[in-house]
Amino acid sequence: MQNHYPPTLKKLISALSSLPGIGEKSASRLSLFLLSKPGLCEFLGDLIKELPFRVRLCKFCRNLSEEEVCGICKDKTRERELLCIVENPVNLLHLESIGIYKGYYYVLHYLLSPKEGFGPKELGLDSLLHLIQERGVKEVILALSPTLSGEATSAYIAEILKPFPLTITKLACGIPMGMEIQFADPLTLKKAFQGREHLKGG
Amino acid sequence: MQNHYPPTLKKLISALSSLPGIGEKSASRLSLFLLSKPGLCEFLGDLIKELPFRVRLCKFCRNLSEEEVCGICKDKTRERELLCIVENPVNLLHLESIGIYKGYYYVLHYLLSPKEGFGPKELGLDSLLHLIQERGVKEVILALSPTLSGEATSAYIAEILKPFPLTITKLACGIPMGMEIQFADPLTLKKAFQGREHLKGG
Ligand SMILES: [Zn+2]
Ligand SMILES: [Zn+2]
Repeated sequence: MQNHYPPTLKKLISALSSLPGIGEKSASRLSLFLLSKPGLCEFLGDLIKELPFRVRLCKFCRNLSEEEVCGICKDKTRERELLCIVENPVNLLHLESIGIYKGYYYVLHYLLSPKEGFGPKELGLDSLLHLIQERGVKEVILALSPTLSGEATSAYIAEILKPFPLTITKLACGIPMGMEIQFADPLTLKKAFQGREHLKGG
Repeated sequence: MQNHYPPTLKKLISALSSLPGIGEKSASRLSLFLLSKPGLCEFLGDLIKELPFRVRLCKFCRNLSEEEVCGICKDKTRERELLCIVENPVNLLHLESIGIYKGYYYVLHYLLSPKEGFGPKELGLDSLLHLIQERGVKEVILALSPTLSGEATSAYIAEILKPFPLTITKLACGIPMGMEIQFADPLTLKKAFQGREHLKGG
């Protein structure tokens, strides 16, 4: 279909197609749109080129930051004893936007996956231990998604943190608020039974 | 939601959101993906910056080209007497991919739209007339989408070409009214070529 496109356009279409969620058709439409906007090409091209040089990981929590220390770690009003472990910056932002948690974070960026070569080093577990000791963290909250790899990663980190004088917690799993029981999947229901809340008696 | 993103990342997300078909959510996902691929940032950034400098319009047919004259205009085996007028490069490619037409093309890039300020100049009608005379074109085939503005543009061009010793045809409406050419199936398009409507001369 693109036989008669100029080589640069073909290269751009193929590069854009390699991005997540962009098929060849939208890559083609985007490329033609860019072609009609030279000013945007200059601006966007520079931004993309500079991105990896400007944005780095916070040296404490590995959140995205344009400075050595991110805005959250700089915020001295937060609860110093709480450290919430999240998979990625998107999850961190989601928790922040809800505004129910006021401690600090640690961003793994990967979940444990021996197959894909993501081990303790990629997850930054060394600097996590360092941070916990340096900050005097008293509770580590595991806030990974309750997926297969999320659960495995939580279990692994909990095991590693066992020797330290810490409380280790994990976000509760169960039926989402507002969902009718008949729509809850079997695994969720099983978790909900296992983790049932004690209301009275013993 | 993006309060805690670094400024460069915010700027990139906002720039990507301005592209057609990309919402803030996919712009955010794309930006984070790019952040994890420094090599791709370098490559893609350069491509986008260079795009408008490398790709231009063929001096004859206004098709996209990286050289002064495009591959189709360079192809001497085509039927010199036929000139097919298309709206844009995507439509040209669609016709080429079906392979039923072996003449040359002329790309308007716009349809007539006084409201949006697209008049004869934007459509390149001067150089169209020049091309027709220089090439000794005998039949001009109007292959614009049978939409309101496509029909208006076809009528306008037919009117302008009236004084010239040419056959003027228009793709037959086997194509459903309102459907854009790039979505028409090969058989429908073939029918449309075969049954092209006779507007003048011949
Ligand atoms: Zn930080
Ligand atoms: Zn050409």
